Amino acid sequence: NPFGEFSADGREFYVTHVHLPRPWVNVLANPHFGLVVSHTGSGFTFVENSQLSVLTRWQQDLADDTSGKFLYLFIPATGELCSLSPAPTWAPLDSYRCIHRLGSTTFLGKKGNVAWSWTLLAHPRETAELWLVELENLGPSPQELELTAFLEWNCGVAPSPRREFSKLFLETQFLPDSGLVLAKNHMWDVGSRRFGHWNTSYPFVAAFGADRPPAHAQGDKALFFGPGGSLRHPLALQDAQWEPAFGRHWDPVAALRYPVALAPYEKATLVFVLAAGKSRKEAVETWQRLANPEEVQKALEETHRFWDELLGRHSINTPDDSLNAVLNWWSRYQAIAGRLWARCGYYQQSGAFGFRDQLQDAQVFLPLEPQRTREQILLHAAHQFADGSAYHWWHPLTEEGLPSRYSDDYLWLAFVTANYLKETGDFSILEQEVPFLDAEAKTLTDHIERAFALAFSRFSPRGLPLIGCGDWNDGLSACGLQGRGESVWLAHFLVLLTQEWSRIFRELGEHEKASSFQEKRNQLIAAINQHAWDGEWFWRASLDDGSLIGSHHNSEGRIFLNAQSWAILAESTSRERQEKCWRAVKEHLFSPIGALLLTPAYTQPNPAIGYITRYAPGVRENGGVYTHASTWALAAACKMRDHEAVAYLLRTLNPALKDPRRSWAEPYVLPGNVDGPPSPLLGRAGWSWYTGSAAWFHRVVSEWVLGVRPTWDGLQVDPCLPSSWSKVQVLRQFRGAPLSITMHRQPGVARTQVLLEGKPLEDNLVPPEVEGPLSLEVLLPEEEIQT
Amino acid sequence: NPFGEFSADGREFYVTHVHLPRPWVNVLANPHFGLVVSHTGSGFTFVENSQLSVLTRWQQDLADDTSGKFLYLFIPATGELCSLSPAPTWAPLDSYRCIHRLGSTTFLGKKGNVAWSWTLLAHPRETAELWLVELENLGPSPQELELTAFLEWNCGVAPSPRREFSKLFLETQFLPDSGLVLAKNHMWDVGSRRFGHWNTSYPFVAAFGADRPPAHAQGDKALFFGPGGSLRHPLALQDAQWEPAFGRHWDPVAALRYPVALAPYEKATLVFVLAAGKSRKEAVETWQRLANPEEVQKALEETHRFWDELLGRHSINTPDDSLNAVLNWWSRYQAIAGRLWARCGYYQQSGAFGFRDQLQDAQVFLPLEPQRTREQILLHAAHQFADGSAYHWWHPLTEEGLPSRYSDDYLWLAFVTANYLKETGDFSILEQEVPFLDAEAKTLTDHIERAFALAFSRFSPRGLPLIGCGDWNDGLSACGLQGRGESVWLAHFLVLLTQEWSRIFRELGEHEKASSFQEKRNQLIAAINQHAWDGEWFWRASLDDGSLIGSHHNSEGRIFLNAQSWAILAESTSRERQEKCWRAVKEHLFSPIGALLLTPAYTQPNPAIGYITRYAPGVRENGGVYTHASTWALAAACKMRDHEAVAYLLRTLNPALKDPRRSWAEPYVLPGNVDGPPSPLLGRAGWSWYTGSAAWFHRVVSEWVLGVRPTWDGLQVDPCLPSSWSKVQVLRQFRGAPLSITMHRQPGVARTQVLLEGKPLEDNLVPPEVEGPLSLEVLLPEEEIQT
Repeated sequence: NPFGEFSADGREFYVTHVHLPRPWVNVLANPHFGLVVSHTGSGFTFVENSQLSVLTRWQQDLADDTSGKFLYLFIPATGELCSLSPAPTWAPLDSYRCIHRLGSTTFLGKKGNVAWSWTLLAHPRETAELWLVELENLGPSPQELELTAFLEWNCGVAPSPRREFSKLFLETQFLPDSGLVLAKNHMWDVGSRRFGHWNTSYPFVAAFGADRPPAHAQGDKALFFGPGGSLRHPLALQDAQWEPAFGRHWDPVAALRYPVALAPYEKATLVFVLAAGKSRKEAVETWQRLANPEEVQKALEETHRFWDELLGRHSINTPDDSLNAVLNWWSRYQAIAGRLWARCGYYQQSGAFGFRDQLQDAQVFLPLEPQRTREQILLHAAHQFADGSAYHWWHPLTEEGLPSRYSDDYLWLAFVTANYLKETGDFSILEQEVPFLDAEAKTLTDHIERAFALAFSRFSPRGLPLIGCGDWNDGLSACGLQGRGESVWLAHFLVLLTQEWSRIFRELGEHEKASSFQEKRNQLIAAINQHAWDGEWFWRASLDDGSLIGSHHNSEGRIFLNAQSWAILAESTSRERQEKCWRAVKEHLFSPIGALLLTPAYTQPNPAIGYITRYAPGVRENGGVYTHASTWALAAACKMRDHEAVAYLLRTLNPALKDPRRSWAEPYVLPGNVDGPPSPLLGRAGWSWYTGSAAWFHRVVSEWVLGVRPTWDGLQVDPCLPSSWSKVQVLRQFRGAPLSITMHRQPGVARTQVLLEGKPLEDNLVPPEVEGPLSLEVLLPEEEIQT
Repeated sequence: NPFGEFSADGREFYVTHVHLPRPWVNVLANPHFGLVVSHTGSGFTFVENSQLSVLTRWQQDLADDTSGKFLYLFIPATGELCSLSPAPTWAPLDSYRCIHRLGSTTFLGKKGNVAWSWTLLAHPRETAELWLVELENLGPSPQELELTAFLEWNCGVAPSPRREFSKLFLETQFLPDSGLVLAKNHMWDVGSRRFGHWNTSYPFVAAFGADRPPAHAQGDKALFFGPGGSLRHPLALQDAQWEPAFGRHWDPVAALRYPVALAPYEKATLVFVLAAGKSRKEAVETWQRLANPEEVQKALEETHRFWDELLGRHSINTPDDSLNAVLNWWSRYQAIAGRLWARCGYYQQSGAFGFRDQLQDAQVFLPLEPQRTREQILLHAAHQFADGSAYHWWHPLTEEGLPSRYSDDYLWLAFVTANYLKETGDFSILEQEVPFLDAEAKTLTDHIERAFALAFSRFSPRGLPLIGCGDWNDGLSACGLQGRGESVWLAHFLVLLTQEWSRIFRELGEHEKASSFQEKRNQLIAAINQHAWDGEWFWRASLDDGSLIGSHHNSEGRIFLNAQSWAILAESTSRERQEKCWRAVKEHLFSPIGALLLTPAYTQPNPAIGYITRYAPGVRENGGVYTHASTWALAAACKMRDHEAVAYLLRTLNPALKDPRRSWAEPYVLPGNVDGPPSPLLGRAGWSWYTGSAAWFHRVVSEWVLGVRPTWDGLQVDPCLPSSWSKVQVLRQFRGAPLSITMHRQPGVARTQVLLEGKPLEDNLVPPEVEGPLSLEVLLPEEEIQT
């Protein structure tokens, strides 16, 4: 990688170049607080909700990443100015390194005889961002430095581009004794049923300060910049005195200036805390508690320990080091910190829980801490209506949500619950009572049965599910607006779900429901195969006027990946047709940059299909690699036992293997999409961090490629490795038992054999009642016949 | 003025300083197209709607005004870089002047031996922005220059801060032969009932180019900036070759580079056109038609002629030159270009028609071109519902609107129509049929009667009108949410309206309606005087719980201006109480910076009152000078014949008399508000341009201070001048007759006398059937007794 590299253990990524094609960021979060920081030092901080409750201003501009919270370093003697991160001064440094790691980001730099380290993190338990700053005089002469911290207050909904209005409601205060700046907002731009619009106060107070009072403080942006100054070069840095302007009448920022005198070879440490509290008292107390080097060091260690310990519960060792780094550390960190906690990246400040999104993401916890998956399931169930439908998304903090007209949202509850049951065997969750948004509490089973009942009520006359205003693919937003368009992907999904829930009802002794679900499944399979088969593959959807998309009749959008991969995953068609589907996928959708979501991309808007056709061709869902769906294709490749395709998909999915000059995005996390043809930027990756593929990539590799997969009958071991892999190790627990699994190729073995203490396991299945710790040896055939 | 000055004729303002406290802008518009440009060169361009249909990107940041469309000047020989306006390079220039004038803005500059002039305007009739650029070599050596034009495409709703998403739908194209860049947007972020969200194309195509092809073109922002480059210093300017990146996959900008070789003392002229069309063909043809110096020069002259001619129809000459400049040129230009056509300023991109706002603004046309007022009245009537209510605002282009729950919106139709009738005598407007939003066309009278009927149905048991979610003062947004709070201002307003419409019905021979309106008026007056009198003034509103605001019982919001000034304007109380009201206004609300809207300002949010209490104290409606209401106070001062107060209000309202180091805002247009106590920035003016006070200031000065006022019986001449004014001239037309009115003080005259050809006019009234041209002489007493 020309711009950086992983540390040997994979937990750190060292960015060594300042001028990257696009910002490479880190999401530092705990479940209630977080920040995003790019390799330039730009970014933002939020509490509880990264859209509705953003503490500091940030402008999304990925071509000119100069917006955020910064530290200026000014040397009065020489007039030299730089910053501890490249932004905002962009002054050339003598050395630069940005270390993104799980839970922290550090900027290392050197300018002349001054070296520094600036580490940022979210406290693991507090609603506080911590900075640890170390400055070192490398030379034999004393140095008089001035360090100035700067941020702009937002304290509410972001983005907030109508600043002239929104700033009229902000209030800041400077406490000279402690050196703390406080900020609050008298107008939180969210709805209030009782008091009307613009008539609610932002419920948090923010506090920002160091472990010592600054020599000077400024609260107004224009005064800090000075006439003709700018963020890049604030003139106030050269002024001997500042006239502090805090209160309610300014363009509110916090600029705090600290003189730092360093004797020859001396080091100095400063600590900054940006805290949020429900009250001024809470915010100040959090700052007080944390604003010292020991506390910050402790928090840093606790954070690193937390991630090591959590993710260490399930680890793999493949022959591909970069894949190990991505899977053992980054992709699950991405899913947890980025998707479940922060719910944002640099491409999107969401803050909301997507009904289907964070449910799927929550599967990341299944092998680690399934209690957290359980909590997420119950949280989503509580955002369902009594008619079985759900919010498409809702915002924590305000509980505002968008009632969903999507055809699949509410069904993911059934999907993830089934997976939770297979991992844990904890059927008690089904009896857990959860309220509806509009009705009193019922059991989770009741919730899920209502979801199914609603889904079953939304079928076309010929027995295929209606697509409504979209299914998993949001962009198919108009196919079924008039109530006639159908979704073939959704049909496959329901085949899989009815199979799972038929089994669950069987486990529960509800045999009538079990067979009714089997019957539903059979009807669906019949309808799919009778109506949705296009000759060589399944079409994707029908429109309200009866025309098809994803059919060989279409010149654009001729074949869609999910309509094939899910036929295989759900086994909703014959093996022969599965093979045809798979051949079609490989022939039409496998491209040099990965498996495309559809092809050819739409080049002209088609309002009858939806906004997917409006994206640039090859971008996002419109014919690019949509990573989320590609992970499902990887599972399908394993089901088809297509080792070559497995190798290909692993290679194209692994962000660390992309050339960043072409892919632009971070090598350590998954991008949401990669440009497909006809984009002139073929292979460019976008929407990094905020993608459901992060959790899925790890899950599919673990369960399908390595094949260590919880089933109703136990933990299946059914690997489908790339042919070039000769040895793999897996550590995970199952039902509380730690397992150590070693797989290797063994000459003369015809099919995979799993040995427990040297003895073959029946059906390669670790029984659910296992007690550990156990060591399994998996013998793999030297070559497997390709289907 | 330390930062600039008016031209002798007042039509131009010369900004001579680059670093002003805040941007001083010009709004250049025709009824369908416009741009805003600040003295730094920053700004944006739109077509039809300055919120929903903005062509170029702009970030609202008044502390760092570096966002817009620019011209870079690069001298390859020396590597020197500057820009024709201060932004975006902020390179020091050897000379600088920005000339804002009605219909155009010009930047004059000089750097070394190169001088330039850059003029921007909106074509007076076409949807096109024109630039006229002249470069001159002042020296004896040849100069090789490179001029680069730059803008970012928006092509849709603004602001659009989620650029990573919105840019996925934009498409640009470069036509090398013509040198034109085309831009369109496949996703217009407005609702579509039929096709759902994000599923509509932006209905315009934009074209940008010069009168010649550029040597190089770039369509991607990151490529233009280069690694480590920025808007301030794009690295591409130093590259010999550009690899143009247009299409659908970039961060879309237009950068066009033109080499300009100047022989010693040579001048060169370049012309740029930014055009919008309903189709590509239309946009290209507009560019073709206009992209030459002659056309631009013609358009410039036509524009200047248009404003001279239009505004010249009504002019005044007072002893105060700056007031003449503001009133004869700028405030009406502000009302027409800024409020009625562009519907935006630098503080707000609105684009919508406010039901009450633009109706009031349209009064600016009454003495100029009343047909335009008539059209605006009928347009608003067409945005009324059959129940009498109306949209609070609606968006031209999409016709999206917000059904109003405000208690006054729909009544302004009655108000402005009455004023239209008094000016024109054109009662035919009342018979004009206009559709409702939800019902078929009825006459304008029918519309207005429904509005009254609705207003009359919304009264409290004691006979005062309910305030609902607010009245003229939007910020009183929660007083009456539960249907009990009352508005005293609205009561006064209804007293005035019932009086006017009683008279109109009388004119129409509808005597029953006339007396029923009189009766309503009497009941209102009785209720107001019985219930709303606070002892020394009228309280402003009651809340749902029955408590009062604007009462001497309140510690904050103790007295409100409108509850007093409208008692005088509507004559809804005895002369004695009017005098008490006026005394209270002067005692409590007259401050060194003008007449406050209320006092003391609210310092703590009170959700039961509304969001007015959330603004910083002294800012906007919360106890600052709200200019709109101050103009009404000026009318009231005239009614009270309080010459001293008239002088005071004129002085504090006149933006040209403010010290800009304290007021910050433009000296040539009215600000929406001025900071009152306890703001530490007492006297700071904000929300310039986008304020309803612009039209009102001119109207009140003409009709009340100069006293030349259309009434039901003719044109009243009833001046109430500041005592220091000894002579005033007025040119205006009345019912088609040009009038020249000269007023001067005459010793021995006891009361104002109006002479027509030397003979006194009865009641100082020019009869409606007058034929012109006429010269009137107005004799004023040397001193008038103050009330």
